[in-house]
Amino acid sequence: MTLEILSIGNELLSGHTINSNAAVIGQTLLPHGFFVEKVTLLPDEKALLKKGIEEAMERASFVIATGGLGPTGDDLTRAIIAEIFHTSLVRSDLVAANLIERFGKNLSTLEDQAMIPKGATVIPNPLGTAPGLIVEGKATVFVLPGVPAQMEVMLPAVIAHLEKHCTKLRYVEPLYLSLLSEQQLDPSLRLLEKENPDITIGICPSYGVLSVYVQGKDPQKIAAIRDQVAEKFKTHVFSTESKQIEKALHRWLVKHKKTLAAAESCTGGDLAARLTKQPGSSDYFLGSIVSYSNHLKETALGVSAKTLQARGAVSREVVLEMVAGVRKLSGADFAVAISGIAGPDGGAANKPVGTVWTALSTPDKTFSGRIPLKGSIRTRSSLIRYTVTYLLASFYRYLVHNIEPYA
Amino acid sequence: MTLEILSIGNELLSGHTINSNAAVIGQTLLPHGFFVEKVTLLPDEKALLKKGIEEAMERASFVIATGGLGPTGDDLTRAIIAEIFHTSLVRSDLVAANLIERFGKNLSTLEDQAMIPKGATVIPNPLGTAPGLIVEGKATVFVLPGVPAQMEVMLPAVIAHLEKHCTKLRYVEPLYLSLLSEQQLDPSLRLLEKENPDITIGICPSYGVLSVYVQGKDPQKIAAIRDQVAEKFKTHVFSTESKQIEKALHRWLVKHKKTLAAAESCTGGDLAARLTKQPGSSDYFLGSIVSYSNHLKETALGVSAKTLQARGAVSREVVLEMVAGVRKLSGADFAVAISGIAGPDGGAANKPVGTVWTALSTPDKTFSGRIPLKGSIRTRSSLIRYTVTYLLASFYRYLVHNIEPYA
Repeated sequence: MTLEILSIGNELLSGHTINSNAAVIGQTLLPHGFFVEKVTLLPDEKALLKKGIEEAMERASFVIATGGLGPTGDDLTRAIIAEIFHTSLVRSDLVAANLIERFGKNLSTLEDQAMIPKGATVIPNPLGTAPGLIVEGKATVFVLPGVPAQMEVMLPAVIAHLEKHCTKLRYVEPLYLSLLSEQQLDPSLRLLEKENPDITIGICPSYGVLSVYVQGKDPQKIAAIRDQVAEKFKTHVFSTESKQIEKALHRWLVKHKKTLAAAESCTGGDLAARLTKQPGSSDYFLGSIVSYSNHLKETALGVSAKTLQARGAVSREVVLEMVAGVRKLSGADFAVAISGIAGPDGGAANKPVGTVWTALSTPDKTFSGRIPLKGSIRTRSSLIRYTVTYLLASFYRYLVHNIEPYA
Repeated sequence: MTLEILSIGNELLSGHTINSNAAVIGQTLLPHGFFVEKVTLLPDEKALLKKGIEEAMERASFVIATGGLGPTGDDLTRAIIAEIFHTSLVRSDLVAANLIERFGKNLSTLEDQAMIPKGATVIPNPLGTAPGLIVEGKATVFVLPGVPAQMEVMLPAVIAHLEKHCTKLRYVEPLYLSLLSEQQLDPSLRLLEKENPDITIGICPSYGVLSVYVQGKDPQKIAAIRDQVAEKFKTHVFSTESKQIEKALHRWLVKHKKTLAAAESCTGGDLAARLTKQPGSSDYFLGSIVSYSNHLKETALGVSAKTLQARGAVSREVVLEMVAGVRKLSGADFAVAISGIAGPDGGAANKPVGTVWTALSTPDKTFSGRIPLKGSIRTRSSLIRYTVTYLLASFYRYLVHNIEPYA
């Protein structure tokens, strides 16, 4: 039995929209043992779309299709599904009643959105107008809306159906590490693969984080091997659940009831935004003074004009004054500060693009140092992302393993 | 002639990594008239990968494959490509010399990374160790690294090759609008499609922005139709280039030499992070006081304890004090403030999750109002994103069309 995803929409192929739905589906199904074997992006064009769905149904027992369910003219999925299953579209009174209850009788798309392929099972859509569908035949096709929130709310129904009808395919146990290079890690993983021919171990580097995926058919065994890797590199491991270092930090700070504040310049609020994306971050995160202009560094954080002039905004001295300033303003237990040159402009011979000073202030001691430049981190957005990840990873490692940052 | 993308890597199928590469490629090729007809995600597994590449070469004249080129054991692409093209891997002295120049003779992966399929053309990789390749046969396969920055730096070589050997496939002209519903826009688009059977118009809603894509084979004609739509909805249009409202605002503020500062609570720095992702944003953006805690609202922005107690942090009165506070601290021409409940916790009967107050302060006048709740915007991250987009779009519309926000 195999499982495939079809992501439908010209905007995905033209690149105007990034296909996050396939990733969300893959990641949601995985802990249940359902591994997606292929993802295909298809255009909103009848012939190509029909062919793409039929080909997937040839290959796979289960096909999850997202997109092309809206009320507008370029949304073709339902009609094509009916054609492929040699059936017609019929009015679903259930769907119609639900739409009337939520949007009233005058919803202009009511009669259109209430039409479903005959025999299909409806997955209710509490957030939008397009219902989800389960259509069973040679293969089972799950038809879900392309709007991420609407798609996500239907995944439990997909999982429930798979649990009943699909044998488990494969398990994956992830492990996330930081402040470590791919070359330092890889030989150990290859050795484990040699010793265990029934498992595979993938490794994926991204902005200062290494994601390791141990895969196999035996959930106990892959968990045990994952734990072996974790033990060997334990001061680098921060999670088995998410590659977002901010989530690990969140857990620690909430558990230990400590607070954190930040003063950011070149990262422009990215550190704050990443922390506050986590629900409940207000339990420990007090805020960030994003002092992009030098004037705001003075008025909001109390950095001295003299230091700014003598050392420049990107300097150890300035991040130390920034971190002291925000600790005083916020009363936080811990504070971090960042000032650097994210580029592409603003670099100089003695301070090239990528020069980033950071500071970490703890109740006992204040540390400061530069983020080590990495060859592959060159663009503005990757410098911002790498800086925040590196600083948060160093902070986490200090908290959990008492290893000094910048050592 | 058709063009397909293959995105290779288990981490894409498992959803641990979102496939941004395919979107970047699609969007980069499009203005040159090269339309991607299909994207397929394939696993790091020899048999499936080989089959996937062969199938794509059956269908398409040009195949762009990303991923699986690294030095680690799960990277299989080069060997499989050599097999498919019935050739062997040979040492490229060019690649070896370049690696030695950049990494020295002791690079452990040197001999491995210098092996390329015989007859392949090398695309240099200035950022990493894996070279890009152009392999020509029944179909032309471009083999690029999976690391986004390394892949992107090779796209000009891909485009240069396509310009020489691939006929143009299709053009797309995008148009981006805000503060408008899909239902208000769609009928006009369907009418235009009826009048022009050789074009198609797609529409894609996302967090307060509508993206419209006019497609066809005649670049002049689709540009003209795009302009017709733009004229009809002109106070809603903010770009023909990017769906990011912050880019349009950036252009306006730089052009008019005006400055902006922000005070954020529930958006947690997301507004600042989005603005500062644009290179050159320091020309107009002075900073954001992310006052997540009430204490920081008082100490950093001067919000009065009395107002906080009487009205609560999520209130018109508090955002007005926040916006006044940050304008004073920063000296900005314009300032915005946001305070709301992003959830999932923290809601109350009189202030449910999704209640967001915002303010916009201009040299002449200060406006304040609530962000209108939208049914499909429910999750914490979508509320944050929608709030920032809505506020920036209202601000942009006020600047360009003098339409009052919250009207």
